[in-house]
Amino acid sequence: MLVRAVGPPGLRTPHTGALTYVDGQPQIPAAAVSTEDAARLQRMVDRGTTVRLKLMMEAHFLPDADSANVVGEIRGRELPDEVVVIGGHIDSWDVGTGSTDDGGGCVATWEALRLMKKLNLRPRRTVRVVLWTNEENGTRGGNAYRDRHLTELPNHVAMIESDGGVFTPTGFGFSGSDAARAKARDIATLLAGIHADTIGPTGGGADIGPSVQQANIPAFELENNGNYFLIHHTPADTVDKIEPLEVSRSAAAVAVMTYVIAEMPERLR
Amino acid sequence: MLVRAVGPPGLRTPHTGALTYVDGQPQIPAAAVSTEDAARLQRMVDRGTTVRLKLMMEAHFLPDADSANVVGEIRGRELPDEVVVIGGHIDSWDVGTGSTDDGGGCVATWEALRLMKKLNLRPRRTVRVVLWTNEENGTRGGNAYRDRHLTELPNHVAMIESDGGVFTPTGFGFSGSDAARAKARDIATLLAGIHADTIGPTGGGADIGPSVQQANIPAFELENNGNYFLIHHTPADTVDKIEPLEVSRSAAAVAVMTYVIAEMPERLR
Repeated sequence: MLVRAVGPPGLRTPHTGALTYVDGQPQIPAAAVSTEDAARLQRMVDRGTTVRLKLMMEAHFLPDADSANVVGEIRGRELPDEVVVIGGHIDSWDVGTGSTDDGGGCVATWEALRLMKKLNLRPRRTVRVVLWTNEENGTRGGNAYRDRHLTELPNHVAMIESDGGVFTPTGFGFSGSDAARAKARDIATLLAGIHADTIGPTGGGADIGPSVQQANIPAFELENNGNYFLIHHTPADTVDKIEPLEVSRSAAAVAVMTYVIAEMPERLR
Repeated sequence: MLVRAVGPPGLRTPHTGALTYVDGQPQIPAAAVSTEDAARLQRMVDRGTTVRLKLMMEAHFLPDADSANVVGEIRGRELPDEVVVIGGHIDSWDVGTGSTDDGGGCVATWEALRLMKKLNLRPRRTVRVVLWTNEENGTRGGNAYRDRHLTELPNHVAMIESDGGVFTPTGFGFSGSDAARAKARDIATLLAGIHADTIGPTGGGADIGPSVQQANIPAFELENNGNYFLIHHTPADTVDKIEPLEVSRSAAAVAVMTYVIAEMPERLR
């Protein structure tokens, strides 16, 4: 099976990704081809040419190995059992170096926590940064977080994931109650100075998804104006695509949203 | 020897190109690396890391084989020995399919001649389209044209090359006398309707270069607003980058400039 690379047209750039087989069904080899090659194959088929391809495919599974989520937190000063979780994922496809998917998300959320610590801000509730493992190939980090913290999930006040790049931030996508959305909009006005005050119609993320769905937790995702899908899962996902100022703006946006949710007297519901 | 790929930053895209050795000097293997990889190597060097690279290089020369320029012309009705030459080159680097470098230039100039024929226009002077061979690896086509037509070069009125892509045309670069430049500007006003009326400070091309230099022939190159160097010499030089409307505009620009130079009573000097 060949699929047209998932992403906007690049420069003959195929996008790698995951393949899942269903037990008991034939395991058909699958590969992505670049936009250009997909278009060429289509033209050949359209004019009646019998297409024969020679594929050299190197993808394979290695045995499972131990890995771990990376977790750090500032314990809340009044309500330590109520938790606001922020984070990204530390694994990446190895065609590139994973700077955009999702190194930037890890750095921006980690930095949000570091800023609070540097400023000696200890909010009312606990703020926890989680750098999940294995997002790209099974979401085992996100599932393990849910399972390990199952009894605590009802006290998860909000979860914020950054897995869409750290280009110029525009705000957050949000999924939750109307009341919580109205509150998120209020908080976001604090980010108008960097034009990151939009609250989009849906929020979430692969890593926070298992927990969010389990306990119906208000879910945010950092949004931006970059061309994430041009780069992600390709050899071009390298650190030169990252603008330090935009990482700082992204961290600022996460820090402000997170701090206010963790500090405000009433719980986000 | 490693060189940073010649071109704007792409998507981990190295640009291939020619390497020339001087007789009697050591023949050092050379390769281009992508912008991203060059930057990474620079960072490693800057922080004092000893850099070791493993290069798999497949480039090699094959024995010479016969090739040829492709030539077509409309003989002039009054001054057939005075010639206006237009063209591009038919060879290309094999990493891509050569649509931009220089398939588009071949099609646009060929089409300019075809339009004149279709319209039953037989100008005063001869119009000749030449699709040169071996531009990328020795310019043997351009040199052979000069050598074969050496005695006729003084009657070459102008040469126009399209080897910079067939994106939206903006006009022509021109090298020649002030009087010829003023005339070129006058003719270019006919192209104002498609905003291709600019006459830039220099014109020429690898294929027309040997003849132009031999006989001091007025030289034009088709100019455009596209990102030619992002694509040329890369696997992304494929036909999907070509917009048919822009090829038509490019052909129109070449046709108008060529027809007027070939038809006007006075010779361009």
